[in-house]
Amino acid sequence: MKSSRLYEVCPAALFSDDAKASGRVLDIDRWLLRTLLQGFGAPKIGAALWDGENIVQGTATAFRMTVRNRITLLRLMLNPLLYFGDDYSAGNIEIQGGLVPFLETVYRAMERPGEVRRGYKSFSNLYRQGMNTLTGSRQNIHHHYDIGNDFYRLWLDDQMLYTCAYFTNPEMTLEAAQDAKMELICRKLQLKGGARVIEAGCGWGGLARYMAKQYGARVRAFNISVEQIAYARQRAKDEGIVGVEYLEDDYRNITGECDAFVSVGMLEHVGTNNYRQLGEVIDRTLSKDGIGLIHSIGQDVAEPMSEWAERRIFPGSYLPTVREMMEIFEPRGFSVLDLENLRPHYAKTLEHWLERFEANSAQVAEMFDENFVRAWRLYLSSSIASFSTGSLQLYQVLFSRRGNNQRPWTRNHLLDPAREESNRTGFDR
Amino acid sequence: MKSSRLYEVCPAALFSDDAKASGRVLDIDRWLLRTLLQGFGAPKIGAALWDGENIVQGTATAFRMTVRNRITLLRLMLNPLLYFGDDYSAGNIEIQGGLVPFLETVYRAMERPGEVRRGYKSFSNLYRQGMNTLTGSRQNIHHHYDIGNDFYRLWLDDQMLYTCAYFTNPEMTLEAAQDAKMELICRKLQLKGGARVIEAGCGWGGLARYMAKQYGARVRAFNISVEQIAYARQRAKDEGIVGVEYLEDDYRNITGECDAFVSVGMLEHVGTNNYRQLGEVIDRTLSKDGIGLIHSIGQDVAEPMSEWAERRIFPGSYLPTVREMMEIFEPRGFSVLDLENLRPHYAKTLEHWLERFEANSAQVAEMFDENFVRAWRLYLSSSIASFSTGSLQLYQVLFSRRGNNQRPWTRNHLLDPAREESNRTGFDR
Repeated sequence: MKSSRLYEVCPAALFSDDAKASGRVLDIDRWLLRTLLQGFGAPKIGAALWDGENIVQGTATAFRMTVRNRITLLRLMLNPLLYFGDDYSAGNIEIQGGLVPFLETVYRAMERPGEVRRGYKSFSNLYRQGMNTLTGSRQNIHHHYDIGNDFYRLWLDDQMLYTCAYFTNPEMTLEAAQDAKMELICRKLQLKGGARVIEAGCGWGGLARYMAKQYGARVRAFNISVEQIAYARQRAKDEGIVGVEYLEDDYRNITGECDAFVSVGMLEHVGTNNYRQLGEVIDRTLSKDGIGLIHSIGQDVAEPMSEWAERRIFPGSYLPTVREMMEIFEPRGFSVLDLENLRPHYAKTLEHWLERFEANSAQVAEMFDENFVRAWRLYLSSSIASFSTGSLQLYQVLFSRRGNNQRPWTRNHLLDPAREESNRTGFDR
Repeated sequence: MKSSRLYEVCPAALFSDDAKASGRVLDIDRWLLRTLLQGFGAPKIGAALWDGENIVQGTATAFRMTVRNRITLLRLMLNPLLYFGDDYSAGNIEIQGGLVPFLETVYRAMERPGEVRRGYKSFSNLYRQGMNTLTGSRQNIHHHYDIGNDFYRLWLDDQMLYTCAYFTNPEMTLEAAQDAKMELICRKLQLKGGARVIEAGCGWGGLARYMAKQYGARVRAFNISVEQIAYARQRAKDEGIVGVEYLEDDYRNITGECDAFVSVGMLEHVGTNNYRQLGEVIDRTLSKDGIGLIHSIGQDVAEPMSEWAERRIFPGSYLPTVREMMEIFEPRGFSVLDLENLRPHYAKTLEHWLERFEANSAQVAEMFDENFVRAWRLYLSSSIASFSTGSLQLYQVLFSRRGNNQRPWTRNHLLDPAREESNRTGFDR
């Protein structure tokens, strides 16, 4: 077993007292745990300390959280959102009855009047908004995306798409749903053969490949993840795909002109204080009649990410509200044409990922260690719960320059399976 | 001819020197007119003073503006956006070659770099944001909507819908497009028989009638326009429609519970400083799994309305950006599900209205006077030009409470002509 230097899922110094050393469960331990649960809106969950006895009287629930030692209990009191993650990863907290429904129950309880969640989150690390400089962004992206293509291959689809899929039917495969997502984006962008596309944040290059192969588009795809770019270039070469150029560079350095600007799953890493600059990049690259789409995780209410997710999983990340996303468009006078919230689709996508992840967890433990497996199990499970309870949203925002009249009258072109184009624009008189 | 007291389209005291009294056109007059055009981004239009000579050398254009006397020229220098409207209404300015394409040409020129338009608008009357108190709103709405049902009947469709229609095909009739709009809204709201609907700002009651007749919904429809409510009640009675109750009251006084909250063309009169309160009204009335839709004219960039439109046509009005609309939803934690921009549909709707208005202009002049006809011609024409050039947008925003999982996976249900409902929601696992 080797531990990834890149990926410290819980601090090496995290002290794990064992249950025996914690000694007998005292009244004050039970009081602390009850107080903690009250602070989270008293979710209907069972809870036990290291003696295994259910602490919450009179509740028969499907789920039980066991806190395995006193030091963990104290850490939870200190900073529950950070240490729940760290201590779950370290094996100091166990959940019986299913991690996803457990988290859904807790998240729903947190949403009750009184805004508990906002209170807990207010400890969080807003200072990190300053982290996404050109260098800071590279470090942040490196932390998550460069931990090994072999690892991501174990649980992503065969095109290596690490963003929300689109399930036109909830029974379809992940592969089919990722194809449907790419097709939906191409239709929203009204992509035509020879169209010049700029993609900001291209992951392992799947969408760029799709646009080039299916639509004959000429794509310049940007990414600062070293491993992703290497993979994308090799795969395009292996598959003999022409018309795609992968550039290892920051979105802020994008130049040239395009008919379509697309960014899928990058905005989460941009930071609100850089939205204006992203808008400037779009403004200097989009052609007069061009069209753009930004696809991003978001939220209803402006809140920082949970401290655990932000520290251990996605450093420098922030998930915007619709209002905040408008900071990209409004200063440059872009028109918002369409916004679609794909929240249920991300819950479903994550269920597929988690299922594949679990099927390969022994291999993941071999690549990293057991703490890593537990951390990623928690990250994927909590993401499912966040989308299913509505703590998180997935926005696709379509936009153009002001007064672009090259748009169809309806959304019918998004649904036509024969990919026929409407010749009518919104302003033929 | 009688002049409407309610509707003062230009101040009675507006001084109209005649061309003769203005005397010979001087060099300084020509310089003033050229300077004015420069300030508007030098649109490619012909321009003449009271001697009829084209002032802009070397341009052969399709349109010509003639300023008929010196006092009008001076007023235009003082406050072009206000006095263009007032003096056009008074007959002191004539446009040859078509008012709509003339205005489109000017609006496009105003959008060029340098932000001329914003500069001119900054004179405008932001203090009016304070006008939409309970009493102020009544006066403002009275000004526009109570000038006579007989007048609006001359140029609206047979259901008296005074909001953007939905043209699934640009050749369809206005009546069909208004039906399609109402159908689209009902589908977005996933309306079912017996659903309790609250409508804020119901106009002459057309949408409420449609929801009751076509879907068996039970609608409580609110409006503070006395004439509109009287019309709506009488018509529902005449047609024997049950399930609709029209209430003459302000949206801020709405109580009760609903499964669907809908507001079509009211937000324009609410004022941004009341958006939070509108969100509170929705929050206290919408059921747990309820869904809501707000349909409003808006704009890309936050700017006051032109002073003429705000003073003479829609007192107290303001057209929000998407960002500003979020002030309704974000403070109460609503989720935005879908946003559709119907800009081209409003240009087309207005073209139908203008055509019908012109066909009945003699009758309108009989009801009011010639200045009124000219003012409304300008209002309808400038609205067409605003939508066709993108100065204005039309947003439909669909929303629900956080975590409402009773939503279909796709938008296919919006397009199904047989009005079949999908039984699948976004979260059947």
